Amino acid sequence: MKKIKIFSPATVSNVACGFDILGFPIESLGDEMTISKSDNMGVRIIKTEGYSIPLDSKKNVATVSAEKLIQYLKPDCGFDIEIKKNIIPGSGIGSSGSNAAGSVFGINKLLGEPLTLKELVKYAMSGEVASSLTEHPDNVAPALLGGLVMVKSIDEENIISLPVPKDLFCFVINPKIEVKTSYSREILPSRVELNSMTKQVANLGSLIHALHTSNYDLLRSSLVDNVIEKHRKKLIPFFDEVQKKCLELGALGCSISGSGPSIFAITKGEENAKKINTEVIKIYKKTNIDFSTYVSKISSEGIKIIDSI
Amino acid sequence: MKKIKIFSPATVSNVACGFDILGFPIESLGDEMTISKSDNMGVRIIKTEGYSIPLDSKKNVATVSAEKLIQYLKPDCGFDIEIKKNIIPGSGIGSSGSNAAGSVFGINKLLGEPLTLKELVKYAMSGEVASSLTEHPDNVAPALLGGLVMVKSIDEENIISLPVPKDLFCFVINPKIEVKTSYSREILPSRVELNSMTKQVANLGSLIHALHTSNYDLLRSSLVDNVIEKHRKKLIPFFDEVQKKCLELGALGCSISGSGPSIFAITKGEENAKKINTEVIKIYKKTNIDFSTYVSKISSEGIKIIDSI
Repeated sequence: MKKIKIFSPATVSNVACGFDILGFPIESLGDEMTISKSDNMGVRIIKTEGYSIPLDSKKNVATVSAEKLIQYLKPDCGFDIEIKKNIIPGSGIGSSGSNAAGSVFGINKLLGEPLTLKELVKYAMSGEVASSLTEHPDNVAPALLGGLVMVKSIDEENIISLPVPKDLFCFVINPKIEVKTSYSREILPSRVELNSMTKQVANLGSLIHALHTSNYDLLRSSLVDNVIEKHRKKLIPFFDEVQKKCLELGALGCSISGSGPSIFAITKGEENAKKINTEVIKIYKKTNIDFSTYVSKISSEGIKIIDSI
Repeated sequence: MKKIKIFSPATVSNVACGFDILGFPIESLGDEMTISKSDNMGVRIIKTEGYSIPLDSKKNVATVSAEKLIQYLKPDCGFDIEIKKNIIPGSGIGSSGSNAAGSVFGINKLLGEPLTLKELVKYAMSGEVASSLTEHPDNVAPALLGGLVMVKSIDEENIISLPVPKDLFCFVINPKIEVKTSYSREILPSRVELNSMTKQVANLGSLIHALHTSNYDLLRSSLVDNVIEKHRKKLIPFFDEVQKKCLELGALGCSISGSGPSIFAITKGEENAKKINTEVIKIYKKTNIDFSTYVSKISSEGIKIIDSI
């Protein structure tokens, strides 16, 4: 294989109570990336389309993560990367994670898959540092593996694919304003009330149990973020209105995707997600903010191969 | 039924990463309680044996929780309670929880079981307030229900019996020094580093997943407390030595039971728990502190009826 073209999905991360550890891909939104072997050693971006991203290989997440990988694998060739950027940077749905994961996935495929998908997580994550200044694998792990993924640490055995009841869907609204992940992290308090921590721990524990037992009532009461949301929602226009509407309409949970400004809701069934989509669009149409919305399964697929030669 | 005699177990609570939300009963240690209907309205302690506990019905946890229950059930009789106190108060293994749960269990039985065990949790918990000044149901819920219980809130639907791989055992050492729960709570910081919270959330989430999938490696890496243990262990003589020995000998986890001074370890198999028991006894025999140790299954049984007439 000399060249591979892939679809690398956007991802919802944090997922309410799972700050920095939970995420899942969105089926219908992602970047297209083409990665080719090259006689020139190293990794470079040779073409981008769509939303603007850095071309400098020290700043582009795709090349940063790829560099880490080839430092380890020491292949006898280099790689050229083309990115068709469909996910807006700073949108809270894993824009950088998509590319950080995509480049290592593609290179690994071109080299005959020396590493497993789980082994790729730590290399993909190094790209995230270039973007947000902190390492958090809750976008790259679900982009690579698909499904709802919990990352306890980047060691392979601590990257956990969770069971997902088959009728779980999500709704996502992406207001087209940029919130820098680094800023969205700065506004978080460095310390959390002990009592709030206990609630967050209990919610995440209950969420995991609810997923294993398909307990929708418990899912609903667990998909709550007591710690992070209250700080970050200030950066997101009409967050409270959107959340209230989603929950009124029966969403199992609604919170901020990643560091925002995207908002996600999880629903039982596609119909509910579609209804929420219709009603939230009405709220945002009253504003002067451009936006996109998505309705998707909690996709069990991560990065997909579109073509290879 | 006029009179019931029960065995109300001691309980390990917190269970490493499950501060204030997780607990399980110890098979071989508990208090005996006899509860009888009486023509005198209200609830009173008529006899105690063993370790000293308050006789004042406003201070004894058994009567405080029972009062709450009869305020709700409004029975046409009163209740006399006898307690044979085998669990040392302030030992970190649910001494007060045993009695708070036992009295409401007994009264509910004598009245023909108007409430479910889960419904009894909130009444039992009101007894805990008398003892520790905070409400935390991680002793009374497992004492009532048996098994490993996660309490997200005292609402019935949020009291969760977790799956327990059948070869999980525990070792407990109870150094016979008293650590008041209220003091052990005072020394905790009111706030926790955000990063520590994230680790604690990830550990508890992974623990729940590990229990559902009988994943012992994941159990081992999840049974860790990054937040509470480091503060409370200062009150427990030789904690570090005991923990190190338990982990060296293969325990899946070792931490403080409740607010201490008891220390527990969870093992795969009874043999491992017994080996740990032998070796930890050697450590504590070198001290001048009296102690007891217990080896037990993670008991699936809570309160047991010994006799009734």
